[in-house]
Amino acid sequence: VYTPRTPRVVAARRLSRRREREEAGRFLVEGPPAIGEALTTPGAVVELFVTVPALDRHPELISATREQGVRVSPVTEEALAGLAGTVHPQGLVAVCRRTDVELPVALGRRPRLAAVLVDIRDPGNAGTVLRTADAAGAGAVVFAGAAVDPYNDKCVRASAGSLFHVDVVVARSAAPALAALRQAGLTVLAADVHGDEDLDELADARVRVPIHGRAESLNLAAAAAVCLYSSARAHRSKEQSQ
Amino acid sequence: VYTPRTPRVVAARRLSRRREREEAGRFLVEGPPAIGEALTTPGAVVELFVTVPALDRHPELISATREQGVRVSPVTEEALAGLAGTVHPQGLVAVCRRTDVELPVALGRRPRLAAVLVDIRDPGNAGTVLRTADAAGAGAVVFAGAAVDPYNDKCVRASAGSLFHVDVVVARSAAPALAALRQAGLTVLAADVHGDEDLDELADARVRVPIHGRAESLNLAAAAAVCLYSSARAHRSKEQSQ
Repeated sequence: VYTPRTPRVVAARRLSRRREREEAGRFLVEGPPAIGEALTTPGAVVELFVTVPALDRHPELISATREQGVRVSPVTEEALAGLAGTVHPQGLVAVCRRTDVELPVALGRRPRLAAVLVDIRDPGNAGTVLRTADAAGAGAVVFAGAAVDPYNDKCVRASAGSLFHVDVVVARSAAPALAALRQAGLTVLAADVHGDEDLDELADARVRVPIHGRAESLNLAAAAAVCLYSSARAHRSKEQSQ
Repeated sequence: VYTPRTPRVVAARRLSRRREREEAGRFLVEGPPAIGEALTTPGAVVELFVTVPALDRHPELISATREQGVRVSPVTEEALAGLAGTVHPQGLVAVCRRTDVELPVALGRRPRLAAVLVDIRDPGNAGTVLRTADAAGAGAVVFAGAAVDPYNDKCVRASAGSLFHVDVVVARSAAPALAALRQAGLTVLAADVHGDEDLDELADARVRVPIHGRAESLNLAAAAAVCLYSSARAHRSKEQSQ
């Protein structure tokens, strides 16, 4: 049983830092639901750290992991706590390979709906938008410019497994990514409350969720939900009328 | 300048606990934007605790507070930190009076849209729904059953001032509240992913945000945003066709 000082555990713990994640091309996923989603992507899970009580509590997850030829490593409670970002990871943390793809690859799959997160720094908001985009039927989610790392632990948790469902793209600069999306035939709608003019120039149109009451604005993830579902509804009603 | 041991500060600090808030009928609001919203409701702010640097940084807010005859109490940084739930409350925390009303009062104002939070325990989600309901034009938000206290500090922060914009109602039991809403002519739509049958019986219909992708579900606040804006849109298109 590995302790917090076992080299494999020490190496995995370093993945809590963005630079280490980028160098290793790996990140951490915690808890049975998210790890279950990771296992649906063949090759995504590299190693599963599990406490001894959790080995007994999650027999199906453990055997699904072993069936993929993935190493299952028993760890002490203390070692697991050091790997987990939450208080209750239910005894399971997996090391996963990055799953993001280059934008041309994502566009090659002809997504009809995509979400582009430009400079979105809050990991909870970014992960929630990723989850909502998946639910609304988006094929790709682009983390652009100064946006948070999609493999940040809070973002991974908020995405609730959707990180493994859609094509995630990391684009250092928003402008070329938006140009490529337009060239692929997608209509680019800018929904930025701060009214970034540079972004406007790259968009086909600007949209705004109407504020009917006295609220100054919407929470970013709530606004994204309304926008993404409006697009999904528009696509579907267009299909039906054709 | 008050310290953490000054009796007024000690008494205010107790308001971080629900029971103390209920007994005192008061709660804490932190940061300039939310306190600014509180000041738009006459009589809501009872006392403003402010650090000496913040006195200089927010002259308009301080004078608006004084104009309402509200006591402005300078405190040490340490005293303010003890009152604040966040790391950066920008030197200001206000003691406010509860602003919720009884359901008949809220219904007397004939809201066309209302949100009922049944058993919603997560304060961030509840506060975000309150903010979104306000934005979508809801007149009332009911915290029902085992829902979080609307005056919980995280809920207050997530509401971003909307706590002071709409009629907030606290209903110990959901069933009579839903019955009253129906009697007032509102259509009750149940949007519970867990499919609470008791709730279904009290609703006119059940709605579900469609999942087009592979996500299992939506985050509660995202689902509420889509539902509330769908209702708002339906109301408006009905108005236009009349």
